[in-house]
Amino acid sequence: MHAYKCIVAYDGSRYNGWQKQGNTANTIQQKLEMVLSRFLDEAIEVHGSGRTDMGVHALGQVFHFHCKTDILASYNNKELLLQINGYLPGDIKLKDITECDLRFHARLNAKKKTYVYRIDTSLYGNVFERNYVNHINEALDVELMKRAASYLVGTHDFKSFTSNKRMKKSSVRTIFDISIEEDCEKQIIMLTYTGDGFLYNMVRIMTGTLIEVGLGKRAPESIQNTIDAMTRESAGFTAPAQGLFLVRVDY
Amino acid sequence: MHAYKCIVAYDGSRYNGWQKQGNTANTIQQKLEMVLSRFLDEAIEVHGSGRTDMGVHALGQVFHFHCKTDILASYNNKELLLQINGYLPGDIKLKDITECDLRFHARLNAKKKTYVYRIDTSLYGNVFERNYVNHINEALDVELMKRAASYLVGTHDFKSFTSNKRMKKSSVRTIFDISIEEDCEKQIIMLTYTGDGFLYNMVRIMTGTLIEVGLGKRAPESIQNTIDAMTRESAGFTAPAQGLFLVRVDY
Repeated sequence: MHAYKCIVAYDGSRYNGWQKQGNTANTIQQKLEMVLSRFLDEAIEVHGSGRTDMGVHALGQVFHFHCKTDILASYNNKELLLQINGYLPGDIKLKDITECDLRFHARLNAKKKTYVYRIDTSLYGNVFERNYVNHINEALDVELMKRAASYLVGTHDFKSFTSNKRMKKSSVRTIFDISIEEDCEKQIIMLTYTGDGFLYNMVRIMTGTLIEVGLGKRAPESIQNTIDAMTRESAGFTAPAQGLFLVRVDY
Repeated sequence: MHAYKCIVAYDGSRYNGWQKQGNTANTIQQKLEMVLSRFLDEAIEVHGSGRTDMGVHALGQVFHFHCKTDILASYNNKELLLQINGYLPGDIKLKDITECDLRFHARLNAKKKTYVYRIDTSLYGNVFERNYVNHINEALDVELMKRAASYLVGTHDFKSFTSNKRMKKSSVRTIFDISIEEDCEKQIIMLTYTGDGFLYNMVRIMTGTLIEVGLGKRAPESIQNTIDAMTRESAGFTAPAQGLFLVRVDY
């Protein structure tokens, strides 16, 4: 038995998210399993570092899989990527594939994840960016957003920032950093989140809350109360999926 | 009667080019005419600065139209753009609309046009750029391309660089400048062409020819012979549409 660790980029626009769930058609996981199973001539199951929702993109999602064949060892890395990418649709691209320890698990071994959320504050939006930003057409006060974000950094119970109501496991997570950069010329605001893990919808709810701060609808200092409240209702709206990118997963 | 000059950006991926031709469905011109006719409650005909082929994009295509109603005068510019863009699909965006002289003609009065062609030379391509570049997956010698481009600049008969075989009008055009820039980090090469006008497929054929120079298949000095030959066969291939952007039209 062999194990492989892979890095994949995808444009999530056309897909029902990463994970196949029951009969859900057209997920990224499905496409990868289909192509790898055909390529390796055995049934391949792919295990991602985590799900991404419908419409969310990835620059560096990580997954692993096991296979019996040792055919992959006969290719060099470059050939292998060109071959497999030849079978994948243009909006899914394998960026790396390397043999790994059989005990490696893309989800359980993840130590750090980085997400970026992109906001377009221009008046009319950009036709080429429409699937890759949240266009909100209003100015945001980035300084207020930075002050608000500082309350989220650290180890907290993030129950207020998840849509998963029946969560049995711990909702404590550590956010290492939230950086907020503004490209004034392009009118794009980029929020970069790094943490040891994120709850279901957590990045999108934190972003929605920070947008409300940037619009002057919430005070930066109120974020502490939002964390303490431990109820979804106390946080802001869930920012739309298409502005969100899973950038990298570190092990 | 009123006349309006408009600037429009579009992602050409989903459309059969700019111009409606007979029964051709789904052109950008058609979409604009449909939306403007509905908005102004009279039949509107839109006249572009020129056609763009299927799959070609625009950051600043210019068109004009005439209308009887003076309803447009009752809006300020910002309101008007927000209104009309509300009716347009997400991949077509009106960027400016201003009343102009009734004699203004978007095609006949154009003095200068600027096109950009984008080439992705990275090994695997970028999933987010796939509709906006020509991915060629090979290194290009940019210095050779620059030397070759210098032969094209100036006033020439560009018969070798058009697919329009039955052209009755003059094929003499003036190219003011061709600049070639390389973003080494992103592995994107950008060719910027400015000229007084371009023949059918001319930018794509010039680009195909320059790519062949960059790949070492043609010598830079051979471009003079290609111009002199005045036959389509002497030039290079027609580079694919999706890397091409009409950037601006000057009057």
